[in-house]
Amino acid sequence: MSRVLCGELEKHVGAPVTVKGWVHRIRSLGQVRFIIVRDRSGLAQAVLSGELARSPHLSCETAVSVTGNVVEAPNVPGGCEIQATGVVVESAPVSSIPFEVNLPEITAGLEKILEHRVVSLRHPKSRAVFKVQAEAIEGFRRFLRANDFIEVHTPKIVASGTEGGAELFSVDYFGKPAYLAQSPQFYKQMLVGAGFERVFEVAPAYRAEEHNTSRHLNEFISLDLEMGFIDGLEDLLSLEERLFQYMFAHIRETCGKELAMFGAELPQVTTIPRLKLSEIETILRREYGKALPNGNLDPEGERLICQYVEKEAGTPFVFATHYPVTSRPVYAMPDPESPDLTLSFDLLFKGLEMNSGGMRINDYHQLVGNMGRFGLDPDSFAGYLEVFKYGMPRHGGFAIGAERLTARILELGNIREASLFPRDRERLTP
Amino acid sequence: MSRVLCGELEKHVGAPVTVKGWVHRIRSLGQVRFIIVRDRSGLAQAVLSGELARSPHLSCETAVSVTGNVVEAPNVPGGCEIQATGVVVESAPVSSIPFEVNLPEITAGLEKILEHRVVSLRHPKSRAVFKVQAEAIEGFRRFLRANDFIEVHTPKIVASGTEGGAELFSVDYFGKPAYLAQSPQFYKQMLVGAGFERVFEVAPAYRAEEHNTSRHLNEFISLDLEMGFIDGLEDLLSLEERLFQYMFAHIRETCGKELAMFGAELPQVTTIPRLKLSEIETILRREYGKALPNGNLDPEGERLICQYVEKEAGTPFVFATHYPVTSRPVYAMPDPESPDLTLSFDLLFKGLEMNSGGMRINDYHQLVGNMGRFGLDPDSFAGYLEVFKYGMPRHGGFAIGAERLTARILELGNIREASLFPRDRERLTP
Repeated sequence: MSRVLCGELEKHVGAPVTVKGWVHRIRSLGQVRFIIVRDRSGLAQAVLSGELARSPHLSCETAVSVTGNVVEAPNVPGGCEIQATGVVVESAPVSSIPFEVNLPEITAGLEKILEHRVVSLRHPKSRAVFKVQAEAIEGFRRFLRANDFIEVHTPKIVASGTEGGAELFSVDYFGKPAYLAQSPQFYKQMLVGAGFERVFEVAPAYRAEEHNTSRHLNEFISLDLEMGFIDGLEDLLSLEERLFQYMFAHIRETCGKELAMFGAELPQVTTIPRLKLSEIETILRREYGKALPNGNLDPEGERLICQYVEKEAGTPFVFATHYPVTSRPVYAMPDPESPDLTLSFDLLFKGLEMNSGGMRINDYHQLVGNMGRFGLDPDSFAGYLEVFKYGMPRHGGFAIGAERLTARILELGNIREASLFPRDRERLTP
Repeated sequence: MSRVLCGELEKHVGAPVTVKGWVHRIRSLGQVRFIIVRDRSGLAQAVLSGELARSPHLSCETAVSVTGNVVEAPNVPGGCEIQATGVVVESAPVSSIPFEVNLPEITAGLEKILEHRVVSLRHPKSRAVFKVQAEAIEGFRRFLRANDFIEVHTPKIVASGTEGGAELFSVDYFGKPAYLAQSPQFYKQMLVGAGFERVFEVAPAYRAEEHNTSRHLNEFISLDLEMGFIDGLEDLLSLEERLFQYMFAHIRETCGKELAMFGAELPQVTTIPRLKLSEIETILRREYGKALPNGNLDPEGERLICQYVEKEAGTPFVFATHYPVTSRPVYAMPDPESPDLTLSFDLLFKGLEMNSGGMRINDYHQLVGNMGRFGLDPDSFAGYLEVFKYGMPRHGGFAIGAERLTARILELGNIREASLFPRDRERLTP
């Protein structure tokens, strides 16, 4: 008999079925055992009577296959249950689990949850995080494919960093020094110039940051895009606005159950306010007496400007634009009208930076000159620079951290909860 | 005026347009210049007369924006051309390209092509390879999502290898030894047992293989899947059969132009013959006098059995199944009917192995015992083994190399042609 999912049991009332999954909960009542079976779709109750009430031995988390007839049961969630005629143990636990996964919340602390990740993920709410993440990424891809972007895959073992050498993990590449890519920045620009024009990539990126915070991971999934033949910064802001409209609509459509588990409501994305960093400085000083560090937003500044925009414009999103040259990478395009500033932006969402982006320098001589100003040796970047020699169109792009986006959507307290197997300063297993 | 793609010019006959792209070819004829503009969609001819015939200066590969009126031109491919009224140079080359990209084929050798990858990709045929690859991957994802698989992302920095320690790249992880994942094997199994049941991943994988061949890369894109609660090997073979049917139909539908550039015809995937390795041994000895190495297929064997199956069954695919325990990894499930063999398989396509897969051991004690037999210390694999303690269903899966698949579909001579920026024994840049 082919398998029926627990979440679809109600479609089979009156029919014989087999469900497969894990024993989520067991209750004995006189001569009858009730077990709740959990599979990827949800829960289903089975009633074991007669010989089945005693044998086989069952404990929570046993992997089982239960066969029986589906009958209406008004008091059971879903309105039906299985009158079991057979139970097969596929795999029994050899020891007891370190914490319960059948209560509304896991009561263990985050350390223990991550140490026993395969156990914590058995809790439907822990798994729901990754359904939302998968659909956010699917929405990202669908929107970009519909806008004629092509998905690419660029190497993560690289000969040099994209930002100058700090915070790189070293790899021994057949005796040669190599590094893990901090981002696909150089490659995505190269591919725009190589003729693809519009590229995106979903792939791991690496930052050997020494500090352990609730919003950084040392390995994370970067949702990158880059677009050529743009007219200016506005093209990128408008693209990201439409991207978030699409992604959020897609998540709402596919993850209703998961969002409800977290009580998360996804905002309607409309026009996202655009504020220059200098304007933000003025607002924060005026409204909150808050001074920003030189040429940048600190975490408190991110929180306050989002709070202000939420109050004034009713949206949790804001673009912060025109960061100074000194706080952006070597490839950031200076603003022709104000050369100390760059045509760059960050998207803030609910008080947290979601991504950085901007237009890039596309003129070969200007880029080489800028490397000099940044103290970088152009010879070390020959592979990157080549494409700028042969007609490089104006271009720009941005990158979104998948875990950070997921954590913000569900308002998780720690970004590690949005990573299946997080890598941080201390954590290399599981 | 908003941009029109070169490949869609014919829809705009009689209207003013702007096209953007690179100067693919230039020809002067008396007082008139003809330029062919190349963008991501194709080519379009523009006629520059009057002042535009002399200025601006244009050379091949200049990034330009051309405005003008679209007129019918029966002798031009596509049946129309642009009577230019304006040409803007967006970026001019600062030196000449190392080889031509406007001839039917690039005449440079593979070494030079890869050294100047950003140039070679400007050739439409080089770029077409990656359109086919992107759609193969998209087909993989769509099929699996439709079959209720969830996309996951697992760490590539790992504490130990999946196959026992050979061929690993070392990473310095804050002073601790770590490695680049050879495959997501352990993690995808763990996620099946963690309750996702059906997972897939598209991500880089790493093999520090010392040898340089035309069919190996040291970093490649692995298309992985794993499925729980299966009944046996047949479930996996049938899944892969349907997967290839879907993927190939998707590629045919989306890549007609690209397949035509290579004269590639995608076979209809019907039932894929299933031969035990022992049966293949018998066939090869009988038909070709060919002996296989102990318990495995060598490249010649792969070629010959595909040749045989093509002749007898009219399909370029064959499943080779039931490899001996000695030639499969520690987690391969022994065949209960014949414990020296495993419930494993390779898919061969046009003479080359596309992927390995099989059922995995799901019993904790059996897996720990097998580690002992393989000389592995179970303590080193504690993070992997944990999930087997708490009810691990029967499961299995397989992995397909994206570059290898692309190379076989287009019959490329070297797998490096199917990698944007290949990493091999010698190559770490660009």
